[in-house]
Amino acid sequence: MLATKLRMFPAPAMNHLEVARLRDAYTAYLPLPANLEPHLEGALQHVLRNPGNLVRPQIVFQMSVAHGLPDVHAIELAIALEYFHTASLLFDDLPCMDHALERRGIPCVHVRFGESDAILAALAFINRAYALTWRAISDCPQERQSRALAYLERQLGVNGLLNGQSLDLHYAALPHDRQTTERIACGKTVSLIRLAIVLPALLGDAPEGELRLLDRIAVYWGLSYQILDDLKDVLQSAAETGKTPSRDGALDRPNIALAIGVPAAVARLTRLLYLGDRMLRRLLITRPGVSFLEKLRNDLRKEAVHITESAFEREARGLA
Amino acid sequence: MLATKLRMFPAPAMNHLEVARLRDAYTAYLPLPANLEPHLEGALQHVLRNPGNLVRPQIVFQMSVAHGLPDVHAIELAIALEYFHTASLLFDDLPCMDHALERRGIPCVHVRFGESDAILAALAFINRAYALTWRAISDCPQERQSRALAYLERQLGVNGLLNGQSLDLHYAALPHDRQTTERIACGKTVSLIRLAIVLPALLGDAPEGELRLLDRIAVYWGLSYQILDDLKDVLQSAAETGKTPSRDGALDRPNIALAIGVPAAVARLTRLLYLGDRMLRRLLITRPGVSFLEKLRNDLRKEAVHITESAFEREARGLA
Repeated sequence: MLATKLRMFPAPAMNHLEVARLRDAYTAYLPLPANLEPHLEGALQHVLRNPGNLVRPQIVFQMSVAHGLPDVHAIELAIALEYFHTASLLFDDLPCMDHALERRGIPCVHVRFGESDAILAALAFINRAYALTWRAISDCPQERQSRALAYLERQLGVNGLLNGQSLDLHYAALPHDRQTTERIACGKTVSLIRLAIVLPALLGDAPEGELRLLDRIAVYWGLSYQILDDLKDVLQSAAETGKTPSRDGALDRPNIALAIGVPAAVARLTRLLYLGDRMLRRLLITRPGVSFLEKLRNDLRKEAVHITESAFEREARGLA
Repeated sequence: MLATKLRMFPAPAMNHLEVARLRDAYTAYLPLPANLEPHLEGALQHVLRNPGNLVRPQIVFQMSVAHGLPDVHAIELAIALEYFHTASLLFDDLPCMDHALERRGIPCVHVRFGESDAILAALAFINRAYALTWRAISDCPQERQSRALAYLERQLGVNGLLNGQSLDLHYAALPHDRQTTERIACGKTVSLIRLAIVLPALLGDAPEGELRLLDRIAVYWGLSYQILDDLKDVLQSAAETGKTPSRDGALDRPNIALAIGVPAAVARLTRLLYLGDRMLRRLLITRPGVSFLEKLRNDLRKEAVHITESAFEREARGLA
């Protein structure tokens, strides 16, 4: 559960050439030396050849360009943040964490190449991600670099992702309520979305007011996304198996729909999307260049409507 | 075997106040937030309270000061490199790697707090190590920063430590000869010693000739250290149990003394120490400020003499 899965967000409007450039960069920006140990090489190739939908780097790239970062640095930052995400997936899938067997329809790296090489591959992505981040920001003024790196450290470290992941793994001993599930989602889901949305603006020296709006958007969308994922888990398992518990329920993993019930979770989702919309409208007045975020917002809302309909159907069928 | 164990090197000559400062910094430079998940907090406290002998950060600190880095940045770099080392130990001890149960006389983090929190703790040290490294070098000219960060990436990544560790874990399938054991030692042992010895000089803008000498010293000493460790493994197990195989032998881990025999390993050690001495003498002509390295060299040689005597005794007893 370390990972933020964004599969529900379709890609923002980028032309095919740009998407292809990101895809190529994902594979090319971690060059493998000729004398690399074959198992580690296999593990890395396995990941580099299956980049996923690359939604996150598209957001980062577009946010970066909109905030004045040169093209080459925008791609470096986009791939760097995607590599951090990739590493989080590799750790997340390990037997001691989520014990997943498949990822993106193929066997997980640890299943195919063993746990030790999955860990070493994840560390290779992290090592490279820091190097690419540094390169991406190296032309910014020193003070802005410091601020960006402190922000990165905060989102990835014990104040962000790592704490969220540890809370997620120890959820069984925590109160199963909205506050707790949202606290965990803030760590494990919102942290990486914050990096994608806020960090490029921070590098582009956006005014404090804009940074605050972007931070709120990251929080509201991140939490919304998590509720969507939680609802899907509950509703799909109900639809497929005709009964709860869901996978999250079976594993006792944080799930707001299980903690407060499906109707209350839908209400919370509606509220968060409304708050996100307010922030986005205010943002677009001063920064029309990030209007591609509207497409993300529309996709998120479409998904929410779809899920809400499923929830109503379930209630109508008396399954709730 | 990810880790470079330097327990045989006694600390270089630093006054007690400076050592105490490093000890305090090791604990203080990874501040734990109040709301940290208790298992992760426990894992981190467990490590932060057992910093070991801190030989490595003493070397880094003295090298940094000798090359003109301000005190505060010298400490940051020293702790950063020690945190990388700490993280490598946490990963190294995991069941899928060395499956160690104890470290520094107390239970390993994964034994006490579980594998997932051991991994998250290691990632916290890595996250903080990158942040501290960046702070340590932030006052250097841009071009030197880039060079230092590229060097760091190379030593820690798929060209350095990670490749060495993967080769180490898959040694069973590799030729058991000098070339292979030294190739592995170059990755897993020399990489971290290079960072301790060469990186501070690189930041201090030492001339290319000096950097080459320091690089050679790191290689010769790193390989020497590894041979000492390998000989110890073989000779101690012989002394204790009266027979081989050693622990490395039992686990089929790289060990040059097992690969080429004890006498040839001793000969190789002698040769490497001789080569290291030549480099050190040349270095001290232009950079007398790093004469503290002579103490390290003397300690290494003392250790070598001691081990060589054990090897002779073993041969005299007819155990060889």
